[in-house]
Amino acid sequence: MHDSPVFFPLREQHTKLRQARLSAVELAESALENFAARGEHDHAYLTWRGEAALKSAHAIDAVLSSGGDTGPLMGIPVSIKDIFAVPGMPTYAGSARRLPPHWEKAGPMVSALLRQLPSVMGKTHTVEFAFGGLGTNLHWGAPRNPWDIKNHRTPGGSSSGAGVSLVSGTAALALGTDTAGSVRIPASMTGVAALKTTAGRWPTQQIVPLSTTLDTPGLLARSVDDLAFAFTALDDELFGKGSRLPDTPDLADLTFGVPDTFFWDDCSPGIAEAVQEAIRQLEAAGARIVTLDLPRTDEAYQLFQLGGLAASELAAFLNTELPDMMDSLDPNVAARIKAADDIAAWEYVRRRNMIEALSASAAERLAHVDALLTPTVAITPPTLDSLVPEGAYPKANMHALRNTVMANFMGLCGLTLPVGKDAAGLPVGLQLLAGPWQDARLLAVGRAIEDKLGNSLAILGEPTMP
Amino acid sequence: MHDSPVFFPLREQHTKLRQARLSAVELAESALENFAARGEHDHAYLTWRGEAALKSAHAIDAVLSSGGDTGPLMGIPVSIKDIFAVPGMPTYAGSARRLPPHWEKAGPMVSALLRQLPSVMGKTHTVEFAFGGLGTNLHWGAPRNPWDIKNHRTPGGSSSGAGVSLVSGTAALALGTDTAGSVRIPASMTGVAALKTTAGRWPTQQIVPLSTTLDTPGLLARSVDDLAFAFTALDDELFGKGSRLPDTPDLADLTFGVPDTFFWDDCSPGIAEAVQEAIRQLEAAGARIVTLDLPRTDEAYQLFQLGGLAASELAAFLNTELPDMMDSLDPNVAARIKAADDIAAWEYVRRRNMIEALSASAAERLAHVDALLTPTVAITPPTLDSLVPEGAYPKANMHALRNTVMANFMGLCGLTLPVGKDAAGLPVGLQLLAGPWQDARLLAVGRAIEDKLGNSLAILGEPTMP
Repeated sequence: MHDSPVFFPLREQHTKLRQARLSAVELAESALENFAARGEHDHAYLTWRGEAALKSAHAIDAVLSSGGDTGPLMGIPVSIKDIFAVPGMPTYAGSARRLPPHWEKAGPMVSALLRQLPSVMGKTHTVEFAFGGLGTNLHWGAPRNPWDIKNHRTPGGSSSGAGVSLVSGTAALALGTDTAGSVRIPASMTGVAALKTTAGRWPTQQIVPLSTTLDTPGLLARSVDDLAFAFTALDDELFGKGSRLPDTPDLADLTFGVPDTFFWDDCSPGIAEAVQEAIRQLEAAGARIVTLDLPRTDEAYQLFQLGGLAASELAAFLNTELPDMMDSLDPNVAARIKAADDIAAWEYVRRRNMIEALSASAAERLAHVDALLTPTVAITPPTLDSLVPEGAYPKANMHALRNTVMANFMGLCGLTLPVGKDAAGLPVGLQLLAGPWQDARLLAVGRAIEDKLGNSLAILGEPTMP
Repeated sequence: MHDSPVFFPLREQHTKLRQARLSAVELAESALENFAARGEHDHAYLTWRGEAALKSAHAIDAVLSSGGDTGPLMGIPVSIKDIFAVPGMPTYAGSARRLPPHWEKAGPMVSALLRQLPSVMGKTHTVEFAFGGLGTNLHWGAPRNPWDIKNHRTPGGSSSGAGVSLVSGTAALALGTDTAGSVRIPASMTGVAALKTTAGRWPTQQIVPLSTTLDTPGLLARSVDDLAFAFTALDDELFGKGSRLPDTPDLADLTFGVPDTFFWDDCSPGIAEAVQEAIRQLEAAGARIVTLDLPRTDEAYQLFQLGGLAASELAAFLNTELPDMMDSLDPNVAARIKAADDIAAWEYVRRRNMIEALSASAAERLAHVDALLTPTVAITPPTLDSLVPEGAYPKANMHALRNTVMANFMGLCGLTLPVGKDAAGLPVGLQLLAGPWQDARLLAVGRAIEDKLGNSLAILGEPTMP
């Protein structure tokens, strides 16, 4: 499967398309073939638009052959999380009901993508209103984690179809969102790379809001280099041409912080080991490793366990814009929103102020290193069956989100890339955290790490075919 | 009294100080004389530092005579609202207890002022935690409105001593804050001019917070031209030299919006009339007058009556930083904070979202005119006695804040200048509202109006001496 063109690095797709050594039609066709082979099984898409994308690909090729160039993402197969409004496709935001037509009008992120004429393969599943880290969905079912052919394991969430669409080869780039870990967790659990942008860095209009304070658009791809390519393409389109990623630094010139505590607690077998081995390799390659703990992680995690900001902010959105929706919510989502009724306004303000204070001290702390290195997710992707017993879902959900939410509560940007497999044979992610607005620099640092350790295809190989 | 140097226009003080035709000592002395004449009676100051200011004035003169120049506000007598942290002076924020020492460390606004070496005459009274529009204070008593020698009328709030300090001639410039009208109301009620800056325009660190979302530092002075002078001086100090006010426009080139509804409802006798007469004069001088209503004023006012954001945000501050303070609050303040306990977090988020939406539409609406003209305050300053009966205070407070809070809830900047007296003989203010970040332009427009109508000294004359 990995020799099909949709698995080519984005830079290679880009170059070959312009050299007429590859066509948008071939790319779309390879995505369609992969969908035929395992799309139904993997269940990544709420709305699959393969045929429509193939038709558009013909037009894209015509533009290409006449010398037209609409941008770096032209002709590249992409999937979009069902939380972004996309013209011509329904938005459910993972809920039981199609949202009003207003939610099918593109916002700035989707416009920046669409103007470049990619092949939009469809909309991927999300946890209902993106409010959960495992990837489950009562209404639409959970995508399958492709790395366990026997058991239905969670693909990570809330961008639950995004990582799967990349592993399945039905897309080469996936748009997701991250409010507490929702691009990094699915990337880590499915063995791909992902970027969580600094809040405020990219616009969130026409993305169905979970937390107006903490929502961030993000990217998933098969390598950090793919992320860097797509990041620059979208950033240029959003803010004007001219942004350029910093050169990939030499590992020997980098200093990484590694926390002593918190992030390593209660990891499933093999996870801490895989991440520590990756860190040892970086150190062996000349990187300086220092001990560095984020400030007040326990307080921050307690704040998260209390519900943070998202429950109240989602409740405000639903109560105001979609009051009828409250009756049909997934009980796991409804329970968390319901709990927000008891949060007083002043307590919400206290939490916001605390997040501001945490962000200030984390930014200061992280100024001393090029990135902080941690396991992205502490637990192996659970099987759906294991989440059925009373209390099992909230516990696993909190545990899965623990390491990623720190970036959201501390105003950071973050990156994850696969570094191996855990004892259960599921992918393990290495998380890089950096201070606010360091997104481009973080990608360059991540590329230096990837150059040393290899990208997802090299590290994980191909999943077993169903 | 008006021939004492502290009443000179700020530009004149500035020029004469540098020409050695006036000294900082003379200015401070004239403020001290005025304080001796009516300071006790007017009760504007929580902390009067006249003697210390006089001592500093000698040093300032020494610097001046050696050719030193620390900025436009050098040697100018100023008063500072007891909500700003000022080194060497206690901060009570109008409460019964001195706040912790942390609150005596200057923030950026006070630093920008102090670096210029003004004569700081003292800290003026405020409503407790700035949470009220009339100027009353259970712990410290209300300053007297100088325009009624017989009855103790409110001076407006929450910057309750700020306007009085100008009318009394104990300061030539007053620092205040405005969250719902707290610089414009005292200015209007005491017959001086004031600027409410756009939220975010000037920093709020080390100002005891009422509403972290809506608090704004502001200025009160005897004329719009004084405001413009001080605005530029502080703005330059905060953001680097080089800001320059736009030239005063010709009235014949200006278009003013005048609302048809809302702002004119239930005005005390003589208020609407005085403002309408001012508008007629502007029209006669060539200004174009068009009908323009702010969007959704009724909804916005309802939101204010529900408590807006301030009660919850103040409660968060007090519960977190000053929990002991809750027991000693003025019942009028405590009642409004207590009510915030029942506001759910999601309802607070809804309000914030609504304020954002209101701000977007108001900014669009106001782009069509140079300013919107309204009465600043709809009611004549009530006597303290009239506020005693059950329910009288909340009613009068809401009524006083009604016209000003629109600027805060719609993200605008605002200006007030006196235009006459009402039927009770108390000053009437004309409010100018303009879109966000139009602060400098608004001052230039206000100056055009003042050039036509005259400043406070010309319009109101001197108050009767006690």
